[in-house]
Amino acid sequence: MSTEPAATLAVSTVIFALRPDEESGLNALWLPLVRRTREPHLGEWALPGGWLPVDEELPAAAARTLRETTGLAPKYLEQLYTFGDIGRSPGGRVISVVYWALVQSDEAEVVAVGENVRWFPADHLPRLAFDHNRIVEYALWRLRTKVEYARIAHAFLGETFTLTQLREVHEAVLQKALDPANFRRTIEASGTVVDTGLRVAGAPHRPPRLYRYNDTAPASPNRTRA
Amino acid sequence: MSTEPAATLAVSTVIFALRPDEESGLNALWLPLVRRTREPHLGEWALPGGWLPVDEELPAAAARTLRETTGLAPKYLEQLYTFGDIGRSPGGRVISVVYWALVQSDEAEVVAVGENVRWFPADHLPRLAFDHNRIVEYALWRLRTKVEYARIAHAFLGETFTLTQLREVHEAVLQKALDPANFRRTIEASGTVVDTGLRVAGAPHRPPRLYRYNDTAPASPNRTRA
Repeated sequence: MSTEPAATLAVSTVIFALRPDEESGLNALWLPLVRRTREPHLGEWALPGGWLPVDEELPAAAARTLRETTGLAPKYLEQLYTFGDIGRSPGGRVISVVYWALVQSDEAEVVAVGENVRWFPADHLPRLAFDHNRIVEYALWRLRTKVEYARIAHAFLGETFTLTQLREVHEAVLQKALDPANFRRTIEASGTVVDTGLRVAGAPHRPPRLYRYNDTAPASPNRTRA
Repeated sequence: MSTEPAATLAVSTVIFALRPDEESGLNALWLPLVRRTREPHLGEWALPGGWLPVDEELPAAAARTLRETTGLAPKYLEQLYTFGDIGRSPGGRVISVVYWALVQSDEAEVVAVGENVRWFPADHLPRLAFDHNRIVEYALWRLRTKVEYARIAHAFLGETFTLTQLREVHEAVLQKALDPANFRRTIEASGTVVDTGLRVAGAPHRPPRLYRYNDTAPASPNRTRA
């Protein structure tokens, strides 16, 4: 065993927002990317991020670098995965601890889009710097294989939502149409949402019920408020 | 941004095996720990692990340090989480990328138990070195909140298993009795196991059906063969 530093630590973040697809108008997953202004990979698009200072906690560094590059400040950042392959960065080994968040449309609006910051559809990315395409693919895989309907909807929709809104979120994430009756049965059997007893205000006839995320399910002991 | 190394990288592993509780005889989760033979925390129990060499991939380092300290060589190691709090190690910041695996009883038998290696019941640990109690708590939380009945059973039981074996695994993980009929309904509705058409050999009357894990569910793109 040696205490020689083996690698440099970095943080990156994957932020997903729901936005309408430019052609179809249907909701899809988008994420903000930042154009690199230095080597390596000068001019290429990359995930927001930066080096980890020795005196800054991991989630704080992820939140700060995200804010500095894009203006985004999600309520929660969750650790996604750590990428540390030997060859992933030219000029020395870099271990990147990657955080992620799902943000609501109003949170996403603060991004100052310009020459060096832009939203991209998650399923149609250009070739990104480093192994960032692989990181986004992994994040999409986690999102799509997690059968956490309600938690994802909570993150995208806020405190209360209708079952139709919930289904639309999942159609956007999975990029396929879901049968409304099957979806309702799956959700009701899962126990992950709770009927609030309230209904959508101002709807003319039979206003839809409002549900909320069932937060009696245990939360991660490592969930981080950024 | 500075390229100054901010921290030292380490790897650790949490290995869970099912073993009968010494008092009750019921199955419970156990994990192997290694006694530290140097400072800091000399003499205290810790997770198997070690430093990350600059030229070794993360999962390879986790597998090697696990093998060197305990003799264990699980087929798959999966990344669990990265722990990097500033104060978690005296004498300089250490970022630990933690891997985990569930092993079957026969795999667990290779551990050379002695003065410096011992199995501990996961729910009744002594005070461990560094933040390793917190790491084990997090691993238990992940295990218990994942509703991945079949995948967990596959890891603990092997290729085929009966619904009773499957239920016993989950009773051990959750440390509570489950109603057999409800359990059967939940499993059948989940689509995560498949009836192999085979039955337990040598059982006298109505031998129980054998099931297998439904591996048509998508696997993680980052799952690592150690």
